[in-house]
Amino acid sequence: MLGQMMQMPLLISSLIVHADKYHGDIEVVSGLSDGSIHRYTYTDAHKRARQLANAFDKLSVKIGDRIGTLAWNGYRHLELYFGISGIGVVTHTINPRLFPEQINYIINHAEDDYVFFDLSFASLIENLAPHCKQVKGWIALTDRIHMPEMKTANVLCYEDLLNAESDDFEWPSFDENTASSLCYTSGTTGNPKGVLYSHRSTVLHAYAIALPDCLSLSARDTVLPVVPMFHVNGWGLPYGCAAVGAKIVLPGPCLDGASLFELFEKEKVTMTAGVPTIWLGLLTYLQQNKLKLSTLKRMVVGGAACAPTLMRSLEEEQGVEVLHAWGMTETSPLGTTCILKAKHATQSKEQQYAVKTKQGRAVYGVEMKITDNDGRELPCNGEAAGNLLVRGPWIAREYFKGDGSPLTADGWFPTGDVASIDADGYMQITDRSKDVIKSGGEWISSITLENTAIAHPAIAEAAVIGIHHPKWDERPLLLAVKKSNVDVSKEEILHFFEGKVAKWWIPDDVVFVDQLPHTATGKLLKTKLREDFSAYKLPTT
Amino acid sequence: MLGQMMQMPLLISSLIVHADKYHGDIEVVSGLSDGSIHRYTYTDAHKRARQLANAFDKLSVKIGDRIGTLAWNGYRHLELYFGISGIGVVTHTINPRLFPEQINYIINHAEDDYVFFDLSFASLIENLAPHCKQVKGWIALTDRIHMPEMKTANVLCYEDLLNAESDDFEWPSFDENTASSLCYTSGTTGNPKGVLYSHRSTVLHAYAIALPDCLSLSARDTVLPVVPMFHVNGWGLPYGCAAVGAKIVLPGPCLDGASLFELFEKEKVTMTAGVPTIWLGLLTYLQQNKLKLSTLKRMVVGGAACAPTLMRSLEEEQGVEVLHAWGMTETSPLGTTCILKAKHATQSKEQQYAVKTKQGRAVYGVEMKITDNDGRELPCNGEAAGNLLVRGPWIAREYFKGDGSPLTADGWFPTGDVASIDADGYMQITDRSKDVIKSGGEWISSITLENTAIAHPAIAEAAVIGIHHPKWDERPLLLAVKKSNVDVSKEEILHFFEGKVAKWWIPDDVVFVDQLPHTATGKLLKTKLREDFSAYKLPTT
Repeated sequence: MLGQMMQMPLLISSLIVHADKYHGDIEVVSGLSDGSIHRYTYTDAHKRARQLANAFDKLSVKIGDRIGTLAWNGYRHLELYFGISGIGVVTHTINPRLFPEQINYIINHAEDDYVFFDLSFASLIENLAPHCKQVKGWIALTDRIHMPEMKTANVLCYEDLLNAESDDFEWPSFDENTASSLCYTSGTTGNPKGVLYSHRSTVLHAYAIALPDCLSLSARDTVLPVVPMFHVNGWGLPYGCAAVGAKIVLPGPCLDGASLFELFEKEKVTMTAGVPTIWLGLLTYLQQNKLKLSTLKRMVVGGAACAPTLMRSLEEEQGVEVLHAWGMTETSPLGTTCILKAKHATQSKEQQYAVKTKQGRAVYGVEMKITDNDGRELPCNGEAAGNLLVRGPWIAREYFKGDGSPLTADGWFPTGDVASIDADGYMQITDRSKDVIKSGGEWISSITLENTAIAHPAIAEAAVIGIHHPKWDERPLLLAVKKSNVDVSKEEILHFFEGKVAKWWIPDDVVFVDQLPHTATGKLLKTKLREDFSAYKLPTT
Repeated sequence: MLGQMMQMPLLISSLIVHADKYHGDIEVVSGLSDGSIHRYTYTDAHKRARQLANAFDKLSVKIGDRIGTLAWNGYRHLELYFGISGIGVVTHTINPRLFPEQINYIINHAEDDYVFFDLSFASLIENLAPHCKQVKGWIALTDRIHMPEMKTANVLCYEDLLNAESDDFEWPSFDENTASSLCYTSGTTGNPKGVLYSHRSTVLHAYAIALPDCLSLSARDTVLPVVPMFHVNGWGLPYGCAAVGAKIVLPGPCLDGASLFELFEKEKVTMTAGVPTIWLGLLTYLQQNKLKLSTLKRMVVGGAACAPTLMRSLEEEQGVEVLHAWGMTETSPLGTTCILKAKHATQSKEQQYAVKTKQGRAVYGVEMKITDNDGRELPCNGEAAGNLLVRGPWIAREYFKGDGSPLTADGWFPTGDVASIDADGYMQITDRSKDVIKSGGEWISSITLENTAIAHPAIAEAAVIGIHHPKWDERPLLLAVKKSNVDVSKEEILHFFEGKVAKWWIPDDVVFVDQLPHTATGKLLKTKLREDFSAYKLPTT
């Protein structure tokens, strides 16, 4: 027997309709590339998203088409989020930090009909255009007088498109499982893979991230997403803010400490989210200039683990609550956030930080489990580490145009991370599955060894890879970049590990290198290292 | 084109699975009828819900069947919420405060196969049983040694049922639109009508109520639902608490000020929800005994408007944030909550209270509009008052076994309330549609007149109804109950209205009565008053 409640599909358009109707005067503030500020309201954003929807009709864009965006965080990008998805077309956010050949690949793979771009990407577009024959038009996110001189033929002007249209438009209703947006992973191997989100997954994710134990979004907040809108839907913040009527501050391309500090203070930002590198830059700026953030309450750190020292400095010097969040392109992205429970309130600062350095607990809607290599579930005791698997209504089932399913036979998504989960549900990532070192049937965390190595004052960066070993199967090799103008010996480094990790975890050898290879988004490219050192002979002990 | 995210149905079982897995040691505390306390954890609750699910198999309960509950807020009732709905059976919570003939009607109308009952309802069951032939068994929520002596034949023992079962049970997966629970409205006219919720509507509602601007639920909270679990799913709190891992305190039948105060303090309750009557009782107790609530942060008031003086006393004397919530059986129930926005933070206390006495703004997922009697939408300017209509995925589309749809032609649910909505989205109920007095083409709010009348020191209770008038169509008549041992004249009362409401709103006459008629749930029964006074002649002026 079915319930007798209204059948209302969960649609992205309902987010901007809600923001307009109940929070119409709330501001959307955008930092522009020239350092100036643009401000308007949710009502304005909704009006222009409707004009855009009318413009798409003229451009013969049809439901299910893909439309690319190459843009910073700004109001026009926000209009694209709602104006494209709202009519059942797929918002394909493109990461401009990928290598040009990867961008080229994904525009063609996605079969984007149009690509919207910020002016700073004009020359990138000129290079891309000849290789992207199916793109019918490249739309510059600017007005007529700022249109760039470009050798690309089919370049259109965004403001001209909008100015030609009325805002008389009713958002259509359709199946909530309709594709809404597309984001490609920047994998360390092979071509990027597209994750195709749905309206349902996006709306459910918006509810989840707004929860008090997640990102905690409300109409009393001013939210500044440093995380780019081309990076997994800006972690869902553009949707979550609209759902609750939070003021939103989009910082544009200027993400240095000085620019961010000015924006935080001027706009009275209460909540922000981004990667550790940005927060390190901000903290350094604040320390150098003896400044203090006066309105910021919560700072979410994702994309990579936050160094404990960075977390402490931000909390203790700046009075900001810092919390880890974990997710992937395939998880929309939010999987876990690390917020203390009631039981932790009476613990010491040290005990609290021990919890806060974990990746956090699953938000309701995401299920997690850890398994050994035979697929057997491991206990959640905070000790056992295994392959992390997730499932839920905002987790990818397959890749766009992909062959087969990435899921396990029983329907879980293997994250590729190795993690432990403790009795309170806090998950901690210890390694990537492909990077973990399998020594004598046991696992050694390459990340733990790398973190230990960079704690040495002479080491700038470190990578640990497994090298084939006749007896132990694999043994760890440390590749380290020395800081400039300091010297240190192999023996000193190995000695440094003693007492910090189990004796059998200590690397068998150290190789000093000038630099380490990285992906376009800054991740260590260990596949390359394993290739380069495939024939490396460990010293026999 | 459809998105490629996992198809995971939103099921109630996933709430208790989440609470068990990630918040397994969090307590569920229950106040029992003998004043003692029972405590166990979400893991225990989940274990017993699974035993219950196995017991239903033996009782030949099938998906889609209805199972009744007549119970206070307690751990066994919580097990029923999850154990019944989790297997696709409908949890039919019955309000024991309805008249026995209404309870009789709804058990038969719902065709309940079994009815679970707390011991305090044993004699009620004895009276009901002969009239409910289709009920296969009446299950006493107790253990063998406390089983009551009853003349009813087919009475079973809950703990015996559970003890006979293993907890080895996997919750089934099914369509998220499957019926999950059933609650009857206590209408002022006609038979009660059943609202049949679905798993989808319940899970979406759980996300919504947990939001920071709604009831704000987290793993740092201890939640005490004073609102009964037989009253519109306990406002969704049993589900919302499980979703976020909040400690839950179920107060049982003792809801007097002394019992509540003890439970609040002993269990360190941070959040609570209930009707104004309860809070008035609590406040009186606190004032008389010079006590202060030391851990409570938020108190949600619903079911009826909170008197401004009560709200102020609770906020200013007790340091508790008091917030209005509005909803109906047909809205799951949550429609609006009244939380200030960022813009109100700098306003005066008086201005803030002016906002806080409204019913609040719609949570994302609920759409509201007001219309005139011809269905034309009225502006949201805080002035215009009209029929309040709502729609959303947790709003009823029709009644259980009902004829036709209660919805408007364009798919909105008419709440039967008259309300205004201001530019910030705050809705304020001014009357019930059927109680509003239509005078010379304009509307007069009977609620405003009643509130004005009871502000007079000599008036204990008041009701205002419309009396036919040859020229104005209707004019207001005030029916008032005097406080004991005080006297007051008609003229004094009418004079009291001057300057407080528009001149043309002042009632044409006053009739003093000994008492006013009420429904089983304490609402004024104005249909009866209109009947009794249908021939009343207003004085000619």
